[in-house]
Amino acid sequence: MTLTIEKTDVKKQAKLAQDASKKLRMLSTEEKNKVLYKLADHLEEHMEPILEANAKDLEAGKQKGFDDALMDRLSLDEQRIRDFAEGLREVAELEDPTGKTITDWTLENELLVEKVTVPLGVIGMIYEARPNVTVDATGLALKSGNAIVLKGGSNAIQSNKAIVDVMHDALKNSAVPSEAVQFINSTDREATNALFTMKEHIDVLIPRGGGALIQAVVDNATVPVLETGVGNCHIYIDEDADVQKALNIIINAKTDRPAVCNAAETLLIHEKWFKKNHEVLFDTLEQHGVTVHGDEEVLNHKADAIPAGESDWANEYLSLDVAVKVVGNVEAAADHIDRYGTKHSEAIVTENEKTAKRFMMLVDAAALYHNASTRFTDGGALGFGAEIGISTQKLHARGPMGLPALTTIKYLMHGNGQIR
Amino acid sequence: MTLTIEKTDVKKQAKLAQDASKKLRMLSTEEKNKVLYKLADHLEEHMEPILEANAKDLEAGKQKGFDDALMDRLSLDEQRIRDFAEGLREVAELEDPTGKTITDWTLENELLVEKVTVPLGVIGMIYEARPNVTVDATGLALKSGNAIVLKGGSNAIQSNKAIVDVMHDALKNSAVPSEAVQFINSTDREATNALFTMKEHIDVLIPRGGGALIQAVVDNATVPVLETGVGNCHIYIDEDADVQKALNIIINAKTDRPAVCNAAETLLIHEKWFKKNHEVLFDTLEQHGVTVHGDEEVLNHKADAIPAGESDWANEYLSLDVAVKVVGNVEAAADHIDRYGTKHSEAIVTENEKTAKRFMMLVDAAALYHNASTRFTDGGALGFGAEIGISTQKLHARGPMGLPALTTIKYLMHGNGQIR
Repeated sequence: MTLTIEKTDVKKQAKLAQDASKKLRMLSTEEKNKVLYKLADHLEEHMEPILEANAKDLEAGKQKGFDDALMDRLSLDEQRIRDFAEGLREVAELEDPTGKTITDWTLENELLVEKVTVPLGVIGMIYEARPNVTVDATGLALKSGNAIVLKGGSNAIQSNKAIVDVMHDALKNSAVPSEAVQFINSTDREATNALFTMKEHIDVLIPRGGGALIQAVVDNATVPVLETGVGNCHIYIDEDADVQKALNIIINAKTDRPAVCNAAETLLIHEKWFKKNHEVLFDTLEQHGVTVHGDEEVLNHKADAIPAGESDWANEYLSLDVAVKVVGNVEAAADHIDRYGTKHSEAIVTENEKTAKRFMMLVDAAALYHNASTRFTDGGALGFGAEIGISTQKLHARGPMGLPALTTIKYLMHGNGQIR
Repeated sequence: MTLTIEKTDVKKQAKLAQDASKKLRMLSTEEKNKVLYKLADHLEEHMEPILEANAKDLEAGKQKGFDDALMDRLSLDEQRIRDFAEGLREVAELEDPTGKTITDWTLENELLVEKVTVPLGVIGMIYEARPNVTVDATGLALKSGNAIVLKGGSNAIQSNKAIVDVMHDALKNSAVPSEAVQFINSTDREATNALFTMKEHIDVLIPRGGGALIQAVVDNATVPVLETGVGNCHIYIDEDADVQKALNIIINAKTDRPAVCNAAETLLIHEKWFKKNHEVLFDTLEQHGVTVHGDEEVLNHKADAIPAGESDWANEYLSLDVAVKVVGNVEAAADHIDRYGTKHSEAIVTENEKTAKRFMMLVDAAALYHNASTRFTDGGALGFGAEIGISTQKLHARGPMGLPALTTIKYLMHGNGQIR
């Protein structure tokens, strides 16, 4: 069943969020934190309607024949709801990213110029599957003084709706108008498309989900986008790489959580290192259940490897598969990454500091690693607290985005009659 | 005559710029500065071909019946070329915005995280009329380690082409490959449109020019855009405004350079102040040749004012016209600005600090002024050095953009085998 909604109704909701954002930006940190704690408590106290709604989503998912992984992403239980609440309390504990004077200076004519951080305004969140995004994104938006328009995936619509209902109930008689959290109650793609061009009411769109969703937003939105996600990450094993470090990093980056965007997808291996160490490398990969797709040189030494072609180099497997290519030097590795990488996370393993430095200069990506796993590209791991996503774009925010990515600046000019 | 170009040729040029950008990001500050000085010297030494080309543009402009203002914007002479060269030398003197460590920290596992500034890559500059943008934008791009693709307006194409030829000649045997500066030698709109979607080769588009040009880029580009320009700026004269300060600021903001984006377009006047001071206000405006478009209350006190409607409130006159509206309080002024403003520069004149603070909180714009002219929203006036434009968007850069707006960041992770 498709839940349809008129474009004009989506527009009305966006406008309500915008009006609410004007009240939000006047709130103190204390007022915002109080609301976040209230939301957390309320979610824990009203689990039942959320779990009932979730059961409906799960039943619908079963009918549609979803696989175990997708069913797990959809599924909620009491512990997961308690985790949502804990997440909100953690956001409350984070530093308020707004109202900070970044710098100030006085011109010769005594005009005092102050550069301060302020909320963006209205955030449009377009996401798939996981209902936790409904809570996490709302918490981050409110903490940074922004209103939010939520457009979740159709598979989780009952759960998302129930979560928002509980949050709206909690916002009653709070400092935050409940209009600050808008939920587009529709499974109609037109509702999503309507958000793409609503520049007059929405300040930024953040897509969270698979590559196709992100691409659709990037290609069609006139509202500015914070692009997140796709990570075709490489590990370059240099001629001077320590064998044990290389194996540890490869196995961690490939197998710890293969479905996340900071997992490694391709190994680029210096020919000299490969000649000496291919046996232990392939043995180790096999022990960890990794399927190797390789170039000719790899196939010469591993008969059961799958021949790798263009599509392998460009692929974000998100599974226990890895593409392996033998290269002549760090420049060749950088060229390959340049061609196929998504500017997310790229690693070099080497004991040669000079080669490491060269790799980090040559390769253009959000995060460059020397002798460490790509898995650290993560707001939590880097100590940013909650994360709104990992930006793979260059403007505004790059890499893991915490609360500051949801702010902009204002120049405040304090004068006494200055003219030019 | 239309100079056409194939989309594939534009793509080739963008790809050449991208390849050159990889060499540019490896250059030292000294190498870049040396090139900027060489460009400056070379322009001063080769004025003749530029002036000859400019004469052709001016002749064509005359044929097309351009007005004096446009002819003046197009026209070059020896002094103006010397100014271009001086501008390049000033950019050379500015601090290099790349290679700076913004912050670093060490995780518990001893992974050292370093956040450094790096060039964006390739800048696509789409601009109208003034040939100075050809030089200024190139200087700013090269200083920040970026390659640039220049698409100037058809009216200045001969001048722009001649300037780029001289610059290309200067880049021979320099540290910067001449491919780093690409000039789209076409007056075909298709060439501009081709740049809009060239995400794989261009990192950011910067439109400089009229509202229609900027809107076309914003509406159609999938490449991220740094939106510049349109300024429908307001001055709110509060109940507690000092009369002399108010008049000085109004006249300066309206008449100093009416055609620039930080000029004032609408005056919002508190009814009490208006009642007491409308005569001196209108007299002063008249003395300075300003035509008043007013609401009913204004018309009641100034019979020769032109009735103002929706189109006046929304209009960036860029001339000696001003719209005047009488309002009841600071909230009404903020509401009006919210509805019609372009989030550029907004001023309040008042002796009441509390009202000033409230105005600055309520109004969402790049620059908020208390008792000063909106004309200070300018990279030069604020001490940023050369300016790439004034951003009216909220993401990445807001307000006057200097060199830092042309950079992004990279996280460099220095490890010794860390895994998660």
